[in-house]
Amino acid sequence: MSMVDVIARKRDGGELTAAEINSFIRDYTAGTIPDYQAAALLMAIYLRGMNRRETVDLTLAMANSGDMLDLHDVAPFIVDKHSSGGVGDKTSLAVLPLVAAVGVPVGKMSGRGLGSSGGTLDKMESFDGWSWALSLDQFKRQLRDIGLVLAGQTNVLAPADGKLYALRDVTATVDNGSLIAASIMSKKLAAGADAIVLDVKTGSGAFMPTVEAAMELAQLMVDIGEDAGRHVVALISDMNQPLGHAVGNALEVREAIDTLRGGGPEDFWEHCRVVAGYMVLLAGKAATLAEAEAMIAAARADGRGLAKFRELVVAQGGDPRQVDDPDRLPKARYVEPIEATRTGYISAMDTAELGWVCVRCGGGRMVKSDKIAPGVGFILPVKIGDHIEAGQEIGQIHADDDMTLQQAQRDIPAAITVSDTPVSPLPLFYATIIGKSGKGQ
Amino acid sequence: MSMVDVIARKRDGGELTAAEINSFIRDYTAGTIPDYQAAALLMAIYLRGMNRRETVDLTLAMANSGDMLDLHDVAPFIVDKHSSGGVGDKTSLAVLPLVAAVGVPVGKMSGRGLGSSGGTLDKMESFDGWSWALSLDQFKRQLRDIGLVLAGQTNVLAPADGKLYALRDVTATVDNGSLIAASIMSKKLAAGADAIVLDVKTGSGAFMPTVEAAMELAQLMVDIGEDAGRHVVALISDMNQPLGHAVGNALEVREAIDTLRGGGPEDFWEHCRVVAGYMVLLAGKAATLAEAEAMIAAARADGRGLAKFRELVVAQGGDPRQVDDPDRLPKARYVEPIEATRTGYISAMDTAELGWVCVRCGGGRMVKSDKIAPGVGFILPVKIGDHIEAGQEIGQIHADDDMTLQQAQRDIPAAITVSDTPVSPLPLFYATIIGKSGKGQ
Repeated sequence: MSMVDVIARKRDGGELTAAEINSFIRDYTAGTIPDYQAAALLMAIYLRGMNRRETVDLTLAMANSGDMLDLHDVAPFIVDKHSSGGVGDKTSLAVLPLVAAVGVPVGKMSGRGLGSSGGTLDKMESFDGWSWALSLDQFKRQLRDIGLVLAGQTNVLAPADGKLYALRDVTATVDNGSLIAASIMSKKLAAGADAIVLDVKTGSGAFMPTVEAAMELAQLMVDIGEDAGRHVVALISDMNQPLGHAVGNALEVREAIDTLRGGGPEDFWEHCRVVAGYMVLLAGKAATLAEAEAMIAAARADGRGLAKFRELVVAQGGDPRQVDDPDRLPKARYVEPIEATRTGYISAMDTAELGWVCVRCGGGRMVKSDKIAPGVGFILPVKIGDHIEAGQEIGQIHADDDMTLQQAQRDIPAAITVSDTPVSPLPLFYATIIGKSGKGQ
Repeated sequence: MSMVDVIARKRDGGELTAAEINSFIRDYTAGTIPDYQAAALLMAIYLRGMNRRETVDLTLAMANSGDMLDLHDVAPFIVDKHSSGGVGDKTSLAVLPLVAAVGVPVGKMSGRGLGSSGGTLDKMESFDGWSWALSLDQFKRQLRDIGLVLAGQTNVLAPADGKLYALRDVTATVDNGSLIAASIMSKKLAAGADAIVLDVKTGSGAFMPTVEAAMELAQLMVDIGEDAGRHVVALISDMNQPLGHAVGNALEVREAIDTLRGGGPEDFWEHCRVVAGYMVLLAGKAATLAEAEAMIAAARADGRGLAKFRELVVAQGGDPRQVDDPDRLPKARYVEPIEATRTGYISAMDTAELGWVCVRCGGGRMVKSDKIAPGVGFILPVKIGDHIEAGQEIGQIHADDDMTLQQAQRDIPAAITVSDTPVSPLPLFYATIIGKSGKGQ
């Protein structure tokens, strides 16, 4: 294969063969194709596009670029979930224990948070001693013993993705549907999932700004999963405002525990019930989504979900007393009210900016090496459509120093748009895309 | 300047500012912008294009990336020529001495031949001892003393072009009008030309396959020259068949000497007279092209052109006896006839393939490090429109070994298409594009 010919064909709008895509991924991962040829090809792909077949071939080649995990020796059927990332998105913390509690094993590998979206691993690190660094043996033993693991992504899975992502980041080739879908799905396929529930966010706090863009990406990922023989369901969910009330690592852990205890914000619980329901449905443990959701609700009501969460904390070295008494979780030094600056109906939130407020308080990372302050963040129980009054306390900011506190007290109301006329609340979900081999109705 | 933002803007079809283009060229030449970002930008430029202003700014930035030659201390006005390359194109060998002979100083820097087109320097190296390696001081002294120099391109001129060209070659971004024009013109501007005659070839042996493509490239180069304050004329000339009869280094030198002596092929002489005429016209030595051509014809007729050529050979260490007696030039071991395989009218030639025949005989380079056999090549006096008979001798092949000889005897007739019906001969020129600041009528 001449790499120049491959670049030229894509440059001219042509189609690449599976053999060419495989050679490219194999040789680029091995370092025998230089970054500059990969960069030229990525830009040609960005501008000329890839069809469904090429995108599937790229995903499979990336999945096959390292180890392909097979967990069937410890679990008969593996269900995974992926969220495209959002502000206040602590869904995994509640969903995974509930799904495991009804008998569906969950062995999940997760990335770290970067930018305005927090990472599940960072949130779990609010527990003293809890670690996401597990060997494959430890991973499999825990999956077999308690049916629930939450580990860091190892770089033996889909190494091509890591290398390509780093290159895309510095060559303005990130924002392309085929490349995004291949990146996400290659990791899921390599991690050994038989079925995958994709939570694709759309709105002011999401990577995909419009429902249409999110639908297109979701359909592409469902197609890839289907062509790769996996059961896939994609939910298009709202990220025009934070999910639930809490934003910030320990604050979100606490909200997840509250939810597993039967409390917590109504929007967050409903979101979790649907995501968990689809996971149970895909695993074949229920005949309908309604039945699956009822199973999840029961596991919440009788405390099995919370007990499974406690097992997860203990198994990975965390302190269970922080589950039993969330007051023991890390706390910020100051807690002060957030006050509305205008009277009216909340019509919009700059959700990404709200995520950045938390990062600026120390609750997230600007660059990979940043350390996270687990206790900081905010509680913002107001939602789009709510009526608020100027001067009313609409939430609380949790900060470790005076400067970030005062900054957040200004920035949070500034990220909220208020209208004089009534505004309708937003739906939690916009659409569901079910792969043909999926089991949804 | 964020390079990622610059790449993203061009990727989305936007326009780059002069400051951004200057920073890119400066930092890429200095090595602080990596190849992979340059490759992504080149592919975005390839697919999204650059407007005239961006192309001029790119050219000027590349010209300014190294030394800018100023030869006005040794010559009042500098005229340069550039050929886009072709098979049998020994134009410079005859044109430069004729132009110098009528009092227009010519200090030309030239590249080496690569691929199916030969290089002027390689042809001149047919003279024992002749060297193109001159210091700037030697270059200037010779220009002042005899008004004619032919030197190798130094890499202190437009170093950005050398670096970018090497990258374009391996990233499928060579064949783009703005990038080609900027590459050619940046070297001409850096070499200090006040006026430039561009000989843009089109046809089966040229980089530009159609007259339209050649016109577009030529217009772009004329525009760049005009915006940079230079006088530029572009001739669109035919390369659907070799220029003249000889193809191969020493064979072409001999044909150029024959032409300077008043003989040589008619098409080659006419081509030289027009190119040289425009150079004299742009230099202000004649009021009209007809007058300039008459001056050139006179310098040929009275032997001043040949004498100037002999001075060039001597000044750069060559053996003048080889000018006086071209039988002393390097010769191939075997000379055998080329025979027509079909009867009819020559309707087309695969001219690039004819160039490759010469390369395969040892007369050119596949890669930069190849050594050249100066004596090999062929004489092919037939032209499109000529009637030939099967078995007729249509030329002679000059080769150093039996294998390449027999191969060439098969390949040359195979590259010639013969038709049963009469075919019109081709014109030498298709169009002339004269910059507004040029002096052509």
